[in-house]
Amino acid sequence: MSDPHHATRGTADEPTGDTAPMTDMDSPAGQALQTRRRSGGRAGHERHVLPQQRPFAQPRMRYRPTEVVSADELESIHDASLRILDEIGMDFLDPEARELLRAAGARVDSGSERVRFDPAMVEERIRTAPSTFTLHATNPEHHLTIGGDWMAFGSVASAPNVYDADSGRRVGNRVDYQNLIRLCQMLTSVHFFAGYPVEPVDIHASVRHLHAIHDLLTLADKPIHAYSLGRQRNIDALEMVRIARGVDEATLDVEPSIFTVINSSSPLRLDTPMLHGILEFSRRNQVIVMTPFTLAGAMAPVTLSGALAQQNAEALAGMTLTQVVRPGAPVVYGGFTSNVDMQSGAPAFGTPEYMRTAMIGGQLARRYAVPYRSSNVSAANAVDAQAAYESVFSLWGAIMGGVNLLMHGAGWMEGGLHAGFEKVILDADLLGMVSAFLDPVVVDEDTLAMDAIREVGPGGHFFGAAHTQSRFKTAFHKPLLSDWRNYETWEEAGSPQAAGKANVIWKQLLGAYEAPPLDTAIREELDAFVARRVAEGGVPTDY
Amino acid sequence: MSDPHHATRGTADEPTGDTAPMTDMDSPAGQALQTRRRSGGRAGHERHVLPQQRPFAQPRMRYRPTEVVSADELESIHDASLRILDEIGMDFLDPEARELLRAAGARVDSGSERVRFDPAMVEERIRTAPSTFTLHATNPEHHLTIGGDWMAFGSVASAPNVYDADSGRRVGNRVDYQNLIRLCQMLTSVHFFAGYPVEPVDIHASVRHLHAIHDLLTLADKPIHAYSLGRQRNIDALEMVRIARGVDEATLDVEPSIFTVINSSSPLRLDTPMLHGILEFSRRNQVIVMTPFTLAGAMAPVTLSGALAQQNAEALAGMTLTQVVRPGAPVVYGGFTSNVDMQSGAPAFGTPEYMRTAMIGGQLARRYAVPYRSSNVSAANAVDAQAAYESVFSLWGAIMGGVNLLMHGAGWMEGGLHAGFEKVILDADLLGMVSAFLDPVVVDEDTLAMDAIREVGPGGHFFGAAHTQSRFKTAFHKPLLSDWRNYETWEEAGSPQAAGKANVIWKQLLGAYEAPPLDTAIREELDAFVARRVAEGGVPTDY
Repeated sequence: MSDPHHATRGTADEPTGDTAPMTDMDSPAGQALQTRRRSGGRAGHERHVLPQQRPFAQPRMRYRPTEVVSADELESIHDASLRILDEIGMDFLDPEARELLRAAGARVDSGSERVRFDPAMVEERIRTAPSTFTLHATNPEHHLTIGGDWMAFGSVASAPNVYDADSGRRVGNRVDYQNLIRLCQMLTSVHFFAGYPVEPVDIHASVRHLHAIHDLLTLADKPIHAYSLGRQRNIDALEMVRIARGVDEATLDVEPSIFTVINSSSPLRLDTPMLHGILEFSRRNQVIVMTPFTLAGAMAPVTLSGALAQQNAEALAGMTLTQVVRPGAPVVYGGFTSNVDMQSGAPAFGTPEYMRTAMIGGQLARRYAVPYRSSNVSAANAVDAQAAYESVFSLWGAIMGGVNLLMHGAGWMEGGLHAGFEKVILDADLLGMVSAFLDPVVVDEDTLAMDAIREVGPGGHFFGAAHTQSRFKTAFHKPLLSDWRNYETWEEAGSPQAAGKANVIWKQLLGAYEAPPLDTAIREELDAFVARRVAEGGVPTDY
Repeated sequence: MSDPHHATRGTADEPTGDTAPMTDMDSPAGQALQTRRRSGGRAGHERHVLPQQRPFAQPRMRYRPTEVVSADELESIHDASLRILDEIGMDFLDPEARELLRAAGARVDSGSERVRFDPAMVEERIRTAPSTFTLHATNPEHHLTIGGDWMAFGSVASAPNVYDADSGRRVGNRVDYQNLIRLCQMLTSVHFFAGYPVEPVDIHASVRHLHAIHDLLTLADKPIHAYSLGRQRNIDALEMVRIARGVDEATLDVEPSIFTVINSSSPLRLDTPMLHGILEFSRRNQVIVMTPFTLAGAMAPVTLSGALAQQNAEALAGMTLTQVVRPGAPVVYGGFTSNVDMQSGAPAFGTPEYMRTAMIGGQLARRYAVPYRSSNVSAANAVDAQAAYESVFSLWGAIMGGVNLLMHGAGWMEGGLHAGFEKVILDADLLGMVSAFLDPVVVDEDTLAMDAIREVGPGGHFFGAAHTQSRFKTAFHKPLLSDWRNYETWEEAGSPQAAGKANVIWKQLLGAYEAPPLDTAIREELDAFVARRVAEGGVPTDY
C-alpha cells in the first residue's frame, strides 16, 4: 500500500470551499498558512522541502509478542474475570441490551440493571468474533487490515484542548480540529482517525457530529471513528460513511467502514449511550473497540492483576453483547489499564505499570483470538524528555504486546487533556521509527556482504565500496526530528531542540496540504445529508 | 541487595581530604555545594528532600528476549563470520598475541599481521568461556552477577567533554570527573562504572590512570573498568583494585574484580594496546568486554546483516584470544553496531537499525552462551525529546535483546562526545523505570482482588478500599522526573520541563553525597601505591 496523494498531486490547485484550510487569524495554523500564501511559496519550493516520510503502509509484527505472565497466570486472570461476571455481575443501563442478554442466557433480575453471566455463555459467545477483518476507508489505498500480525496507528482523539508552541493552549475549536485532520492526513504513519483529534466545541453539540464527520470524510480519506453518544449519532455516522464510500447498505453491511470505542464506566458498568453504540454498530457489522478504562487504584484494584481481571471482565461482557447482537460482528479487545499517582490521584501514563498491563492485555486478546487495541499515551504537559519517554515506553508496551489498533498514536498529551501540534510530529516520527524497527533484517549472501568485507579488508572503510554506494540512499530510516549534526554546527544553528523542529514541520506539512479527491456526486450527497440533518436540528442534547 | 549507605549514614561528618567534593569555583557542582554548605542545609533538611529511589538491585530478564532473526538466519550470520575469519582473517598488531594464536592453531604468515582461523578452532576455543560470573566490587553489597538473566547497568564512560545546564559544555576535567563519580555512586540504578564518566584531561596522561582509578576506588564502591592503553596501565589497575578489595593475588585470580572494554579497530583489526589488555586481564582471570564498533556504512558494510557478520567475526576473534590466554577467563560479547547518516557521515544512535542489531547481538551472545553487552546511547546534543527517545529506543533494543552488561547506562550524550549531568538523572530515571518494568506481576488470589471488586461493586471507586489502603504507598514505581501535575498547577510552577528538574536533582544528590567507608589501612596502601607510581613517572606516553 502506498499513498498516491503525496507523489502525484504536486500541481493540483489549492483546495476551495470548506476543504480549504481556514484562515482565522486567531489560529496559528491559519496564520502560518496565510504567510505561506502571501509569500507564494506553496506550489513550488515548499513541496521540495517537505520532510521525507515512509510510504503509507501497515507494519506487521514480525517478532514474538512479549509474555509478561505465564500461561497459567493468564488463565488465572481469565478465570477471575469469569467469576466476576458470574458472581458479581455488571450493570447494563439500557433495557434493550439487558433484554437481549437475558434472552441469550444471561441472568438478569427484574427491576435491576445487574446482569450476570455463566462462564460457558461468555466463552461460547465470544468465539464468533472474527480474528481479522478489513476496516474500509473512502480511499481504498487506506483500507486497513485489523488483526493477526497487522498493525494500524491512529491519530490523537478526544482532547478537549489543543496546543501549539506559537499560541499556547486553548479550548478545542473547529479551526484546530480541521488543521489536525489535515496534518494527520499528510502523515503517512497515521493510518486512521481515532476520533476527533480535538473536540470542536464551537460547533453546537446537537449538530457537532454532522459537521465533524463531514470534515473527517472530506478533508481526509483514512478510516474514521464515530462517538457513541446516543443512538441517532451512530445512525447518522453510518449513513455519512456509507455515502462517502459510495456504497449501498448491503455493501456496508459486509464491509466494516467505521468504528466506535466503547468505554465501560469502570468498575463494572456500561452506560446507555455506549450500549446504544454496540446495538447500532454491531447490528450493522461495524467495528466495536471495547475498552474498559481501568486506572489501578482508582476505578480498579490497586494491584495490576486485579485491575486486569476487572478490565477483562468488562471487555468480555461488552464483547459478548456484540456477538449476541450479531454473531461475527467485528470487535476489538481494548486494554487501557494504567495507574494513578497515589499521592495526588493524578493518572499516570507510559509507566512501568502501563507497559506490563499493555502487554498482558495483548496476551488476553490473543487468548480470545480477537484484535488488540492499545494506545500511545503521555501525561506530560510539555513536549520534553518526559513526553518522549512516556510515549516510547507506551509504544514498547503496545508494540511488544502485539497491538493491532493503536489509538492516540500521534498527538496525545497531558493524559488526553490536550492534542498538541508539535506532539503530532514527535509521535509520527516515533511511529515511523517503530515501523522501521519492524522491517525485516534481510539475511542472504548479498546482505552478508562477504565480497565487500573482502574488498575493504582490515583497516579500510566502506564509504566508497560499491556495496555501500548502491544502497546508501535507502539503507537507513530517516527520522523527521533527530538532529545528528555535531555540537558546534548545532550550536551555531541556535541549539534547536526537537519540539522547535516539530513546530516547523507541522507548518510545512499544513502548508503543503491538499484535500484528497472526492467524487462530485458523493460530495453533493454528503453536503445535502448534513444540510438536511442540521435543518432538522441534529440530535437532542439533553441527555 | 540493598545499598546501606543511603539509609544509615545520615549523621556522618562531612567527608574530608580528597574524598570531599572539590569546590573549584569554576565548577558549577562545586558552586552548588558551596551554597548548600553556607546555608547549612546539608545535615538535616537536605536528606529529607532527596528523591526516592529503588533499592540497589540487579534486575533480571523475566521475559523471552526478542528474536529479530530466525535460527537459520542467525546461523547464516555465524557462518559468514567464520568464513571471514577463515578466508579474510584479521590483523593482530601485537607479536605476542599472534604467537599465542599461532601456537593454538591459527594460521599466521610470517612477516604479516594477518591471522586466519579455522572455524573449528574458533568454535572449540570459545566453548570454555563462562556463561555467568561474579564481578566483584570493593563493597560486597555491590558485587554483580554478569550473565544468565541478570542485568547490570553502568555509568556513562569515556566522554571527552562534560555538560551541565548551569555552565554549559566544557572539556573533561577532574572536578567534573569526581562529581560524576559521586553522582553515580548515589544513584541506585547505576550498578557499576563503565569507565571514566568523563576524561579528566587536566591530569597528565602518564599518571591519569593512577589518580582516576584512585578516585573511582575511594569516592565510590561499585565495580570499575580500566582502559587498555598499554600493558603497564592494566597492571597498575589490577594492583589497585586488589589493594582496594583487600585481597591477595590468589584471591583476585579467582574473583574477577575489574573489566576492560576491548574495541577492535573495525574493520578486522586489533591494535596493540587492546591486545595487551586481553593478555594482562585474561591471564589474571579478569573481565574482557569484547566490543567491535561497527558503524554500518562506515567501518562495516551498509547492510545490517553484513555489519553484524563483521561484528561477530571480530568479537569471536577476540573471545578466542581470551580463551587461548586462559581457558575459562570471563569474556563478554559486546554489540555496538549502529548506522551513520549517509548524507553527512554522522553516527546515529537509538535508531531502528540500532534496536534490531542490539537484539541480534543478544541472539548471537546467547548462541555462544556468554554474557551480552549493549549500551544506552543517544546522538542528541540537548536533553530534549530526541535524547529521551533515542535512549529509550536503545534500552528497548538492549533490554528486549537480553543485555547483561549495559554500558553508558546513565549520562551518554552527543554520540559519546559529552557526559551530561542532567542526562545522568534522566537516564537513571529510565533505568529505574526499566527495572520496574522487569518486576514480576504477581498473580494470586490476593492480587486478583476479587474481594475488593466485590466490596466496591459496579459504579464505585477503589480509593477507600482496604485492599488499596494497605498497598498504595508501594504499589507503583515513582519516577524521578515525571511531572503528573495538572496543567494549571504545572503552569503556575513555571512550566518546568524534565531537563530543568534533572538539574535540580543532580545538585540535591551531590549535596547529600558521602564517601563510602574505606578501611584506613587499605586507604593508606592505595595512597602509597599511587604516590610511588606517580613518583616513578607513571607510564610513558609516547605510544
